[in-house]
Amino acid sequence: MKLSLNTATVRKQWTLAQIIDGCARHQITGISPWRDQVEQMGLAQAKSAIQANGLTVTGLCRGGFFTAPDWHDDNRRALEEAHELGAQCLVLVVGGLPKGSKDLRGARQQVRDAIAALLPEARAAKVPLAIEPLHPMQAAERACINTLEQALDACDELGEGIGVAVDVYHVWWDPKLEQQIARAGRKKRLYAYHICDWLVPTRDLLNDRGMMGDGVIDLPLIRSWVEGAGYTGFQEVEIFSELDWWKRDPDEVLKTCVERAARC
Amino acid sequence: MKLSLNTATVRKQWTLAQIIDGCARHQITGISPWRDQVEQMGLAQAKSAIQANGLTVTGLCRGGFFTAPDWHDDNRRALEEAHELGAQCLVLVVGGLPKGSKDLRGARQQVRDAIAALLPEARAAKVPLAIEPLHPMQAAERACINTLEQALDACDELGEGIGVAVDVYHVWWDPKLEQQIARAGRKKRLYAYHICDWLVPTRDLLNDRGMMGDGVIDLPLIRSWVEGAGYTGFQEVEIFSELDWWKRDPDEVLKTCVERAARC
Repeated sequence: MKLSLNTATVRKQWTLAQIIDGCARHQITGISPWRDQVEQMGLAQAKSAIQANGLTVTGLCRGGFFTAPDWHDDNRRALEEAHELGAQCLVLVVGGLPKGSKDLRGARQQVRDAIAALLPEARAAKVPLAIEPLHPMQAAERACINTLEQALDACDELGEGIGVAVDVYHVWWDPKLEQQIARAGRKKRLYAYHICDWLVPTRDLLNDRGMMGDGVIDLPLIRSWVEGAGYTGFQEVEIFSELDWWKRDPDEVLKTCVERAARC
Repeated sequence: MKLSLNTATVRKQWTLAQIIDGCARHQITGISPWRDQVEQMGLAQAKSAIQANGLTVTGLCRGGFFTAPDWHDDNRRALEEAHELGAQCLVLVVGGLPKGSKDLRGARQQVRDAIAALLPEARAAKVPLAIEPLHPMQAAERACINTLEQALDACDELGEGIGVAVDVYHVWWDPKLEQQIARAGRKKRLYAYHICDWLVPTRDLLNDRGMMGDGVIDLPLIRSWVEGAGYTGFQEVEIFSELDWWKRDPDEVLKTCVERAARC
């Protein structure tokens, strides 16, 4: 599988311009930038540097947070940016419970309604929307879509132009993972595949992801399911690591990503 | 619902003898002790003090860890203790990945095989076994059964004498929770109901549970599902809280449990 770098992996060390150069230097041919980094660099400059280096934009991170009051404006801008960058998808982190709320079912309905409203605009912009189910430990704060089955059920309701981003960190534990990856493939809804590892112990609920091979996820197995489902895209490395990788020399990080990805 | 105290809630402050007295003082009529505390007090003394105070033993914590080499001896002892104490069930925390392993499917098979081997002994001892699905964030280290659906699928394979312990902390996020609680009720497999709360933010993956009302779980809603499924047992408070409740005066903790449980 070709390798893409989610720019969060070295966001503490490098600007987007430096990351694009780093990808070229390490023969990483895909990139998935975060919007704050694109904004900082300037959309036109980012687009031109990415094109100049022949990088495929495997996703734009991120749209979503549909339970926030300003979700529509923000997601419209995200769509424009994704369109401009030629991103293969706009990754959706759908949002958790509204502040002060305990109504999880209500939040989920709100998310489905918002995506239904956004989807015609996404189709018009030719930007596929990729729901990323997030680990259940992030249900309250970041995303109330927490399993691949739940995400695919939502896709089935919503129709064309919407699929999923499968990030092993969020779904590796799921007893229905193989079955649901196969379902995503059958429905042509497998838009992105993100890799990293689950560390034992995990010291933080958000920013303690591991480098591939340092944790307990059977990455070759999950990759075989993803390939078996017909996915021919990139595998995208995305590591949030306050305690380790964000403190290292970013060239060492990218070198390690390339080496490890070759084995998973 | 009647209230039971899982003794982990004040385990840092009190011995089991003190906890039993505390339950009596606070009109808490159920108790669910941990085996290390029972051993420290002595099984006969624990049994006699629990009976003298008229407490119902809503569960014994815990059997399981079926992926460890000595699982069978340890679980036999747990069954004897549960039988002796007249526990309504032996709670099973089934165990995670064996050390060094990434074979989650294998671990799950190992767990099912071990329970199948233990079950005839449990039936003979008249001790119902209650699988407690644990939060997916504990899949690697503590339990590879992570959803109620997965636990109930295992129960269906295993037959009579095995059910589930539903702990809101582990399952509150699950989009299929209502459906699977109803299923557990229909199959007469709902053996225990544990309450606490999910804090935002959660600062530790194991020991940062909240007191009912301090987090984001809609406890009255889940209770309504549990009661709607025909459950007539106790609600059992179980709070692991290194940073807060384990540091407080235990009489204050029990008083707060009683007040809060009345509203959930």
